[in-house]
Amino acid sequence: MASEVQKRTFGSAATHIQRNPAYSELNSDDVSYFKSILGDNGVVQDEDRIAVANVDWMGKYRGASQLLLLPKNTTEVSKILSYCNTRRLAVVPQGGNTGLVGGSVPVYDEVIVSLAGMDKIISFDNVNGILTSEAGCVLENLSTFVENEGFIMPLDLGAKGSCQIGGNISTNAGGLRFIRYGSLHGNVLGLEVVLADGTILDMLTTLRKDNTGYDLKHLFIGSEGSLGVVTKISVLTPAKLPATNVAFLSCNDYTSCQKLLLAARRNLGEILSAFEFMDHHCIDLAMRHLEGVQNPLPASQYKFYVLIETTGSDESYDKTKLEAFLLRSMEDGLVSDGVIAQDISQASNFWRIREGISEASVKVGAVYKYDLSIPVEKLYDIVEEMRCRLGDNAEVLGYGHLGDGNLHLNILSSKYDDSTLAQIEPFVYEWTSSQRGSISAEHGLGLMKAEKIHYSKSPEAVQLMASIKKLLDPNSILNPYKVLPQSVL
Amino acid sequence: MASEVQKRTFGSAATHIQRNPAYSELNSDDVSYFKSILGDNGVVQDEDRIAVANVDWMGKYRGASQLLLLPKNTTEVSKILSYCNTRRLAVVPQGGNTGLVGGSVPVYDEVIVSLAGMDKIISFDNVNGILTSEAGCVLENLSTFVENEGFIMPLDLGAKGSCQIGGNISTNAGGLRFIRYGSLHGNVLGLEVVLADGTILDMLTTLRKDNTGYDLKHLFIGSEGSLGVVTKISVLTPAKLPATNVAFLSCNDYTSCQKLLLAARRNLGEILSAFEFMDHHCIDLAMRHLEGVQNPLPASQYKFYVLIETTGSDESYDKTKLEAFLLRSMEDGLVSDGVIAQDISQASNFWRIREGISEASVKVGAVYKYDLSIPVEKLYDIVEEMRCRLGDNAEVLGYGHLGDGNLHLNILSSKYDDSTLAQIEPFVYEWTSSQRGSISAEHGLGLMKAEKIHYSKSPEAVQLMASIKKLLDPNSILNPYKVLPQSVL
Repeated sequence: MASEVQKRTFGSAATHIQRNPAYSELNSDDVSYFKSILGDNGVVQDEDRIAVANVDWMGKYRGASQLLLLPKNTTEVSKILSYCNTRRLAVVPQGGNTGLVGGSVPVYDEVIVSLAGMDKIISFDNVNGILTSEAGCVLENLSTFVENEGFIMPLDLGAKGSCQIGGNISTNAGGLRFIRYGSLHGNVLGLEVVLADGTILDMLTTLRKDNTGYDLKHLFIGSEGSLGVVTKISVLTPAKLPATNVAFLSCNDYTSCQKLLLAARRNLGEILSAFEFMDHHCIDLAMRHLEGVQNPLPASQYKFYVLIETTGSDESYDKTKLEAFLLRSMEDGLVSDGVIAQDISQASNFWRIREGISEASVKVGAVYKYDLSIPVEKLYDIVEEMRCRLGDNAEVLGYGHLGDGNLHLNILSSKYDDSTLAQIEPFVYEWTSSQRGSISAEHGLGLMKAEKIHYSKSPEAVQLMASIKKLLDPNSILNPYKVLPQSVL
Repeated sequence: MASEVQKRTFGSAATHIQRNPAYSELNSDDVSYFKSILGDNGVVQDEDRIAVANVDWMGKYRGASQLLLLPKNTTEVSKILSYCNTRRLAVVPQGGNTGLVGGSVPVYDEVIVSLAGMDKIISFDNVNGILTSEAGCVLENLSTFVENEGFIMPLDLGAKGSCQIGGNISTNAGGLRFIRYGSLHGNVLGLEVVLADGTILDMLTTLRKDNTGYDLKHLFIGSEGSLGVVTKISVLTPAKLPATNVAFLSCNDYTSCQKLLLAARRNLGEILSAFEFMDHHCIDLAMRHLEGVQNPLPASQYKFYVLIETTGSDESYDKTKLEAFLLRSMEDGLVSDGVIAQDISQASNFWRIREGISEASVKVGAVYKYDLSIPVEKLYDIVEEMRCRLGDNAEVLGYGHLGDGNLHLNILSSKYDDSTLAQIEPFVYEWTSSQRGSISAEHGLGLMKAEKIHYSKSPEAVQLMASIKKLLDPNSILNPYKVLPQSVL
């Protein structure tokens, strides 16, 4: 079943992956052992519950696991992995299962280890804004918690209501605050990780600075659960600033969007907190499929739309600054039309459009999603080239985090089919590679792109990654078939 | 000679290190080979020039190398390392040699590979502020270059006139802009690194986001040249904001300093760019030993001094904000006295005091320097405890980057002696460890603290570091005796 579904979606690549016969198959002794350490409640064999954990939220990737484990603490995770390593049982660590590349569901019969039961906040230092929690905490819950203390999480993304912080870190999630607060490599202070053999690696410092030896935690940020299972985290949370303003603007061409970005960096400077861009196909889609959402600029049809957010400490000053910026940008001809949200509900509406594009996309039928880093000046070229290639066969959407050079390319079609896929791939990867771009800016490689890593990484780098994988997980039990090509392992 | 000098400075620990007999000794064939690839100018045997490279700037660490190599490009670095690896010749990579822990000078007869000849700027993307350069560029030169383009380097430190960006990255330098722009792990976008066997690892992306496989560059950020030699770098440079304001304040007690930090985070928010703290011993020392420096608050003797810098886009607004903050802090009793610099020269004077403490310290005679990360509320306790322990035998100074929880503890004495050292160590490390602090916040471990890593890292973490060292440098030719304890290698 697994390979059939993968074939449907991802064509020839996924069908080449065979179940690795080195892995053992689960037996009743294994289940008894897991019950002995986790209790009956921690060992799920119920078909319906397992079915949910076997498939990703888009319904694209479906595994055939027969066992879902729910550890309650690090020691239990350690015992699970130690046992699986000895028994050569393959394991998929699972957070909120909100990923887009098939990284968090089994491919075959891997044991699913869910972190959902480890959702406690351990401590919060409200002088320095340092949060320590278990890995299974849902991002939105952490957000609410730290906001009540006067701080914010350094990351925010559309999936916040389901995604877990451990998964965010394991996939190096980017999201909407990246332009202001940067990468998790800069914001994560410490991790506790359980290695494949059950070793608990305590790197759970809460210090902002620590140059004692190699900073190992970075190996686990973005390695998609293939080097270890993140069990606890500490993260730096910036102070919450009281004044947020959101503007929704339109531009007539892509060059104006770029110039507007540069102008925003210069003139909004320290208060700029988001610069999101969408082409008009995205707006049309959002208006068709998102309930209760209004077009903030309904008067005319524009080619491009930009959402700018500022966050600062002075409401009226920041707003005046944003208004002045908007006025000047209109005078300079960069912006055709624009509006600043007058209240929270209007601001939410603006954000709902941007954040809802992904949700709206999946309502059409089939959606081929690509997440690319491309130098900003070339970023929209691939969207136009793709439109030419596909003609009437598909609708091509371009949107994303322009301030980070991150394009989300969504290709909508009535159904998945191999001929459409063949027009998209490998072209999209080859094109991105030719620009020295990244074929995965923030989504990761997962199952979808494990075999495509060479488009963005040198052979020497991939070889070293494989060596590190073998060092940390010699039996390759952690999240198999993902991240790295099978040929190098 | 080497061990004698180390004994003088660092007591018993360093004398335990023996030259590793596995390393070959340099012979004339080696020198001929190096001349064949680097030319005569790239191979330095002149005693005076080598003497300079054999010793650190404080004169604490002195090696006995007989050869200094000056490669001009990555291929030459690759050939050098490939040869040294085959011949088992140990190597010390050297940047500006401004480190404080003996990481950049030989311990015995290691070949010194200086990056000074690789000082070209490769490209600058002035839309996104992305700088790509060779590793030997001096930080101040890069700063000047990007400032002319309207950007700033994300790091700044006292040694900027000599330190090189490759060394900054290899040591994960922190410095004065950390509170605003964070760690190099967040700001470095790409690296080119030559591995011990000469393999050139191209990770020189200029993308802000790239989640394709393990982010290997982080292994080389802060590993002090022991895993590879950084040859090229790309780094994100923030937009230069036009308005900088600097205030110099005094507080009567340490609790007020902490409260002031919290208030600054809340009220100065997005424009806060430095929060440096000094006790009055530092000010006294600076006034005695730094030429042309004036005490900004001469009216009275205060216990603590704080330098606050703001950087923003609006000169008059920012200044008004800082003035209001200062006034409120005085009303609240947090600040005893304070002054805002009225011009650049006054601002430079404020900064000169803070940046000159290290320079003034070495003029006294002997200085035992410690660089600790400690939870802010406990940070000054170690200074006071140390003062009690040492009594009249030494002058104890506490200063540092309070906003980052980073204390610089300097202990001044007329000369180095074992009994003073025995009163300081291992106490300072044990105390820091008991607070779950870091015994090296930003200076690294180098030779000075390689054997002390266990005070800040778990045995499992140190073991994994050793495994990674063996994987990347199986003959252990890169920067031997440093970073990790000999016992685990």
